[in-house]
Amino acid sequence: MSYYPPSVLNLIQQLSRLPGIGEKTAERLAMHLLRVPGREAEALARGILNVREKVRLCSRCFALSDTDICGICSNPARDASQVCVVENIAEMVAIERAGGFAGLYHVLQGVLSPMDGVGPDDIRVRELVRRVREGGVREVVLATGTHLEGETTAAFIAERLSAYPVRVSRIASGVPLGGDLRYVDQVTLKRAMETRHVL
Amino acid sequence: MSYYPPSVLNLIQQLSRLPGIGEKTAERLAMHLLRVPGREAEALARGILNVREKVRLCSRCFALSDTDICGICSNPARDASQVCVVENIAEMVAIERAGGFAGLYHVLQGVLSPMDGVGPDDIRVRELVRRVREGGVREVVLATGTHLEGETTAAFIAERLSAYPVRVSRIASGVPLGGDLRYVDQVTLKRAMETRHVL
Repeated sequence: MSYYPPSVLNLIQQLSRLPGIGEKTAERLAMHLLRVPGREAEALARGILNVREKVRLCSRCFALSDTDICGICSNPARDASQVCVVENIAEMVAIERAGGFAGLYHVLQGVLSPMDGVGPDDIRVRELVRRVREGGVREVVLATGTHLEGETTAAFIAERLSAYPVRVSRIASGVPLGGDLRYVDQVTLKRAMETRHVL
Repeated sequence: MSYYPPSVLNLIQQLSRLPGIGEKTAERLAMHLLRVPGREAEALARGILNVREKVRLCSRCFALSDTDICGICSNPARDASQVCVVENIAEMVAIERAGGFAGLYHVLQGVLSPMDGVGPDDIRVRELVRRVREGGVREVVLATGTHLEGETTAAFIAERLSAYPVRVSRIASGVPLGGDLRYVDQVTLKRAMETRHVL
């Protein structure tokens, strides 16, 4: 690739380390960054540096935040008596996008996984228990994934919280909306049948 | 998107301005940049700033370069008597990748396009004529595209260079290798027939 000067080669290399960006795309992005007005390329570079400098975890719910307490935790319009427990930021974002939950979150920053050596002390379970103990929380909604680790983590947290006067719920599992029963896997269909509700 | 702090929102916005990067991908990239070691994110940011600071156009051939004269122009192993004229960097890169040309380049930085108001003075034709006039060039290979503007530009340059003792050639047009004649468009097939060569 001697037809690119070293600075361009370096940029292509850096860009191709991003997930889903192959060498061809990295090349195209590098050419784009050379073509746009200088301030636009600079805005991207500064945005990267800025985010790394500013972003931390909310000291209450462990979501991303520029400040000590995040925007959701400090929003008086949200119902602080409900706490939704999720594995990571991505799951919190998915729930926010879906709408329908106006409480606060607790981002575990992981999920119990003995195989990978992740135990209760490696995720934010203790901090969740402390939030419940400090009072004000009436319901904890366990919204970890419905895979093995997610189910285990939900069960573990439910057990841990059983000593406190708090309602512990689990998001529903079942047939996705718009789903055709023929194409739903057996385990999901069995669960949907078991957890059927009276109309 | 109040579930992201301002610094993250800003980064997502900057990333989604890149070509082919939608909002979902920008979000994924931003999360990645938050997760990787700090020096990796910083290397990308610095790479962007660095490329904008260092890269200029080679003062001889107008390819990208970190220095006044680019790597190809200053490479003594290349044949300075052959100059391949291309529209942009991308075409030069394509030819270099294909191999088979060991001369120098001349990047026009565009193509004649009266419809878009691009005339001979808007692309690097004058500089090409000067290179030829200064001597040392025995052949100019016109490798502009085979679309209307590319053909027009090639014809224009050939006319301009007719006053000089230099051989002016045009890259061949015809049936692509591995191509099935049934699927080649009529204009290409007609051209391939007209420019047939004796074996």
